[in-house]
Amino acid sequence: MLLLHINRYHRGIKTCVIGPLARLFTCTPTMAKSKFEYVRNFEVDDTCLRNCYIVVRLDGRNFHKFAEQHKFTKPNDNRALGLMARSARSVMEELDDIIIAYGQSDEFSFVFKRTSTWFKRRASKFMTHVASQFSSSYVFYWKDFFRAQPLIYPPGFDGRVVLYPSNRNLKDYLSWRQADCHINNLYNTVFWTLVQKSGLTTIQAEDRLKGTLAADKNEILFSEFDINYNNEPAIHRKGTTLIWEKRDEAVTKQISLANDEKKEVLVTRSRKSVQSYHCDIIGEQFWLQHPDVLEDDDC
Amino acid sequence: MLLLHINRYHRGIKTCVIGPLARLFTCTPTMAKSKFEYVRNFEVDDTCLRNCYIVVRLDGRNFHKFAEQHKFTKPNDNRALGLMARSARSVMEELDDIIIAYGQSDEFSFVFKRTSTWFKRRASKFMTHVASQFSSSYVFYWKDFFRAQPLIYPPGFDGRVVLYPSNRNLKDYLSWRQADCHINNLYNTVFWTLVQKSGLTTIQAEDRLKGTLAADKNEILFSEFDINYNNEPAIHRKGTTLIWEKRDEAVTKQISLANDEKKEVLVTRSRKSVQSYHCDIIGEQFWLQHPDVLEDDDC
Amino acid sequence: MLLLHINRYHRGIKTCVIGPLARLFTCTPTMAKSKFEYVRNFEVDDTCLRNCYIVVRLDGRNFHKFAEQHKFTKPNDNRALGLMARSARSVMEELDDIIIAYGQSDEFSFVFKRTSTWFKRRASKFMTHVASQFSSSYVFYWKDFFRAQPLIYPPGFDGRVVLYPSNRNLKDYLSWRQADCHINNLYNTVFWTLVQKSGLTTIQAEDRLKGTLAADKNEILFSEFDINYNNEPAIHRKGTTLIWEKRDEAVTKQISLANDEKKEVLVTRSRKSVQSYHCDIIGEQFWLQHPDVLEDDDC
Amino acid sequence: MLLLHINRYHRGIKTCVIGPLARLFTCTPTMAKSKFEYVRNFEVDDTCLRNCYIVVRLDGRNFHKFAEQHKFTKPNDNRALGLMARSARSVMEELDDIIIAYGQSDEFSFVFKRTSTWFKRRASKFMTHVASQFSSSYVFYWKDFFRAQPLIYPPGFDGRVVLYPSNRNLKDYLSWRQADCHINNLYNTVFWTLVQKSGLTTIQAEDRLKGTLAADKNEILFSEFDINYNNEPAIHRKGTTLIWEKRDEAVTKQISLANDEKKEVLVTRSRKSVQSYHCDIIGEQFWLQHPDVLEDDDC
Repeated sequence: MLLLHINRYHRGIKTCVIGPLARLFTCTPTMAKSKFEYVRNFEVDDTCLRNCYIVVRLDGRNFHKFAEQHKFTKPNDNRALGLMARSARSVMEELDDIIIAYGQSDEFSFVFKRTSTWFKRRASKFMTHVASQFSSSYVFYWKDFFRAQPLIYPPGFDGRVVLYPSNRNLKDYLSWRQADCHINNLYNTVFWTLVQKSGLTTIQAEDRLKGTLAADKNEILFSEFDINYNNEPAIHRKGTTLIWEKRDEAVTKQISLANDEKKEVLVTRSRKSVQSYHCDIIGEQFWLQHPDVLEDDDC
Repeated sequence: MLLLHINRYHRGIKTCVIGPLARLFTCTPTMAKSKFEYVRNFEVDDTCLRNCYIVVRLDGRNFHKFAEQHKFTKPNDNRALGLMARSARSVMEELDDIIIAYGQSDEFSFVFKRTSTWFKRRASKFMTHVASQFSSSYVFYWKDFFRAQPLIYPPGFDGRVVLYPSNRNLKDYLSWRQADCHINNLYNTVFWTLVQKSGLTTIQAEDRLKGTLAADKNEILFSEFDINYNNEPAIHRKGTTLIWEKRDEAVTKQISLANDEKKEVLVTRSRKSVQSYHCDIIGEQFWLQHPDVLEDDDC
Repeated sequence: MLLLHINRYHRGIKTCVIGPLARLFTCTPTMAKSKFEYVRNFEVDDTCLRNCYIVVRLDGRNFHKFAEQHKFTKPNDNRALGLMARSARSVMEELDDIIIAYGQSDEFSFVFKRTSTWFKRRASKFMTHVASQFSSSYVFYWKDFFRAQPLIYPPGFDGRVVLYPSNRNLKDYLSWRQADCHINNLYNTVFWTLVQKSGLTTIQAEDRLKGTLAADKNEILFSEFDINYNNEPAIHRKGTTLIWEKRDEAVTKQISLANDEKKEVLVTRSRKSVQSYHCDIIGEQFWLQHPDVLEDDDC
Repeated sequence: MLLLHINRYHRGIKTCVIGPLARLFTCTPTMAKSKFEYVRNFEVDDTCLRNCYIVVRLDGRNFHKFAEQHKFTKPNDNRALGLMARSARSVMEELDDIIIAYGQSDEFSFVFKRTSTWFKRRASKFMTHVASQFSSSYVFYWKDFFRAQPLIYPPGFDGRVVLYPSNRNLKDYLSWRQADCHINNLYNTVFWTLVQKSGLTTIQAEDRLKGTLAADKNEILFSEFDINYNNEPAIHRKGTTLIWEKRDEAVTKQISLANDEKKEVLVTRSRKSVQSYHCDIIGEQFWLQHPDVLEDDDC
C-alpha cells in the first residue's frame, strides 16, 4: 500500500535500489511539486492598508516573573531599560522604514512609515521580523548591560500590528503609551518608596494607594519623602523615544596629493543614526522640533 | 499653546509646581484614558478559523550570508542543524498546544492542535511568540553547538501563519516541506561533492547539474563518487521531526518506612517529552506509529 | 488654479478648444491611469480559506415592520415563505457551486461546495452576489405569491460569510438553524393561538409563556386547543431545504425516420434541478438519503 | 440510531408522543443551544479600520447581456441611467452615513463617512446592505423608467468594500471612476457614431479606433460628424454624483390662534435631501462648493 502510494510520484532506478524506501531519492522535483504544492494556496494575504502607519508593539512575556528571577531593581532597572533600548535600536537599524520607536517598561512600539512597501506591507512579515530581531538582540546584548549576571533562560516577546490612518491617530497612539508610562511609573515610584523607605509591606502599600489620584501620589512623595517626582530621571517618567537623525561626524580620510604623496585629512560627513530621547512626546513641541519624522496627511 | 493643550487633561497642584512641565505629573489616569484610549479600537481581530490546524513557519533572514559569515560547513552543518532543533524544542516546551514541528535547513514549522484556544487563536500571538522564542533561544543556545566560535550578530527569522482544515491538508503540508528538503539536499549533496571532491568551480557544478533529474543526480553520486545517497545521514535527507511522547523514566524517590526510617526507591514515572525523528513523514507509516499526534477530522 | 491642475494630466488640442473644460476630452487613458489608478491597491484580498464550506446567510432587514406593513398572516405567512424559497431557488440557479440552501422565517443560508473556486473564493463576491440576486428576485417574484397586494417599498437583506472546515461543523450549522426554526415556530404557534383563539392580548400571551419549556408549550396547544404541534405543517416546523437532484423527465423529441418522415417520440432525459424539502436535517437520515450533497472530509 | 441521537438533547413527554419524530417538539432551547451554538464562533470579525472612508462599489453582473436583452440604446440609455441613479438614491436614503455616491454605466460607488459606526463598521454589513437595497430598488423602480417594457429576469450586482485613509485618497478614487467614465464614454460615443452614422460594422469601427488617443477620437467626431464632444450631455460625460444638501422648502402648517381659531400659514423649513449632479469632481471646484461632504483629515 505504502509502496503503491510512493510509486505514484517516485521513479525507481536500477543501479542502487536496495529496498522500498530507497526509491524515495528518485523523487523528481516536478512530480513532487504537482502533488503537494497546492498547500501553498492556503496561505492568505495579510497586506496592510496603504497610506496608514504600521505600528508593531512588542510586550514581554511573563516579564513579572522574568524580572524577579533576574533580580531587576524596583521600581526601575536601568540595565533592563538600557537593554530594551539597545535591542530596539538593533531593530531600527536592521529592518527598513522604521521612523520612530517608543518604549517603556517591558514594551516597545515601532512605527513604519505610512508609504512603506517593505515586504509588500504584509503584516506577518512586519511583526515577526520585529519580534525576532528584538528577541535575538535582547539575548545577544544582555552581557553588555548585565555584565557577570547570567541570563537564566531565553525570554519571549509577543507582538501585534495596528494601523493608523492619520498623523493625529499616530500621535495619539504614542501619547497613549507615554501616558501609560507616566501613570505606571508614578504609581510604582510611590509604591516602592513606601515599601523601601517606610517599611510598608507590599499589601500595605497597595492599600495606601487605593483610590489616590496623581496629585495625591505626588503629595505623598513630596511631603513624606521630600521627593519631587518631577526631578525623577526622565527615562523613567517619559520612557525612551528613538528617531533617525542626521548628525555631522568627523572622519579621517586619506587623500592623494599632486606630488603622489598621501595625506590624512579630517572631513565632516553627515550621517543618519538612531538618536534617543527621554522627553515629552504628547505635546506638539517634540513634533515641531522633528518635523521630518512624520509624512503629511495629504498623501 | 503647549500649556493650554496640557491643561485640557492635566490638573496642577500647588505644592510643587515649578514650571509648565511639572504639571504633567498631575495627570489623572481617568482623564488620560478618555483622551487617547480610543486608539485601541484600531486594533483588528485576527482570530484563526476554528477547527483548523494552525501552522507557523519560520525562515531565516539572509541566512545565506549568515552561514557564510559563521563558516557553516557545506552542504550541511550539523552544529547549525542541532541549534535549529534545540531552539524548536524550546518553542514546543515554552508555548502551548504545539503537537508537531518539522524543520530542515534554516526553516522550522510548528503545528498547533486544531482545537487550540491559546490566546483566543489570535494569529499575531501565535506567530510572534514562535518567532520571538525561537530567536532568543537560537542566541541563548548558540554556544552549546558552536562552542568557542562566536556569534557575530543577532540573527533574524520571519514567520507566517497558515491554516489547514483537514488532516489530509496538514499531512500534505508537512510532505511538501519534506519533499523540499529531499530535493534541496540531493542537489546540494551532488553540488558540493562536485566542488569539494572533483575540484569544479561552483559555476561548473551548477552547469553540470542543469536539467538533471533526481535519478541523474543519484547516478553521479554513485558512479563517480561511490556514494549511495540513501546512506547519507537521515537528518540531512529527511530533516527533523519533533513530537511529544510519553516515555517511562526511572526516578529516585524517598519513601518513609513504618519504622520512621527513610529509604530511597527507584520508581518508574511516565513523562511527556519532546522526541526527535529523522524519518519519512510523507508515507502513512509514521502516522500509523504515532496515532495520537493528529486529532480526528470529524470534530 | 483649476486649469493648472487639469493641465497636469490633460493635453489641449487646437481644433476645438472652446473653454477650460473642453480640455478634459483630451485626457489620454494612459495619463489618467498613472495618476489615479494607484487607488486600486487599497483593495484588500478576502479570499476564503481553501477546503472549507462557504456559507452565506441572509437576514431580512427590519422584517418585523415589513411583515406588519404587508399584512403577513401570523404566525406564518405561506405566501412570504413561498417567495423566500422562490428567491432562494433563483440564487441557486443563477450562481455557481451552491450545494444546499436552508431557510426559515426571513432568513436563508446558502452553502457553497468546499472545493469551489468561483470568483477565486473572494468572500465579498459570494455574499454580495447572493444578497443582490435574492433581493432582486424577491421583488421580481412578489406578484407570483402576493397577487394583487402591492409591494409598498423595496425590502433589504443583509448577509455574512462563515466558513466551516468539516462536514460535522457544516451539519451542525444547519442543525443550529433548524433548531432555531423549531424553537421560534413552537413559540409563535402557541403565542398566536393564545391571541387568536383565546383572545389574550399580546402582552398577556407573552406573560403566559414566560419561563415555559417546549413540553409546556406543547401541552398548552394539546390540552387547551386540541392541537398536536407535530401535525402542524412541516414547512413551518422544519423550514425549507433546497438541494440539486437528478430527476428523469419525459421530453418530446422529433426524430427523422428512414423514409424522410419525421416522428415525435417521448424520451426520458435526466436533468438536475432544485428540489425542495421540509424535513428534518438534524438527524443522519437526510444525509444518508442524499449522499452526494457533501464532499468527503478527507480532501 | 436516529432516536438515540435525538434523545441526547430532546426530552419526550407522555401526553402526545405518537412516533419517534414527535419527540422533536420537546427539544428545549437551552439544550439545543449547548449542542450547536458553537458554530457561531466560526464567524470572523471583519471590522473596517477606524477613521477611513468606507467605499462600497457595485457592478452589474453580466450587464452586457442584460443590456442587449432589454434593448438598451447605444452608447447610453437614459432610462437605464435614470434607474441606476434612482436605485442609488434609495440606498442613500435607506442606509445610514452615506455622504456621497458616484455612478456611471452599470456601476455605482457609495462612500460612508470615515467616522461611521454603523453596524460596528462590519464590512459584510456595508456591502450586503448596499447590494441588496440597490438590487431590490432596481426591480421596484424599473417600470418608472422603462414603462411598458417588461423586466425579463431579476438582475444581479456584485459589490466590494475598499477603505481610504485620507481625503486625497478618497478624491483620487472618485476621480479614477470619473476618468474611467470619460474614457469609456468618449470611446463609446465615437464607436457608435461610426456604426450608426457611417454604417461601419462593429469590427470596422473597432479597427478604426485601435491606437487612437483622446484627441484623435475627438477629431473624428468633430471633423467627420460635426459633433463637439464637449456638448454631449453632461450625464454621459461626467456620470452622476449624489450628495446630501439642505434645501429650504415651503410647508403649510396649522397654528392655533389666541382666540382658539386655527389658521394655516406657510413656513420655510430646511430639509436635507439627496441632490444629483453631472459635473466634474476631479478638480477642486466641486469640493470647494460643497465643503461639508468630507470630514477633515486631522481627526
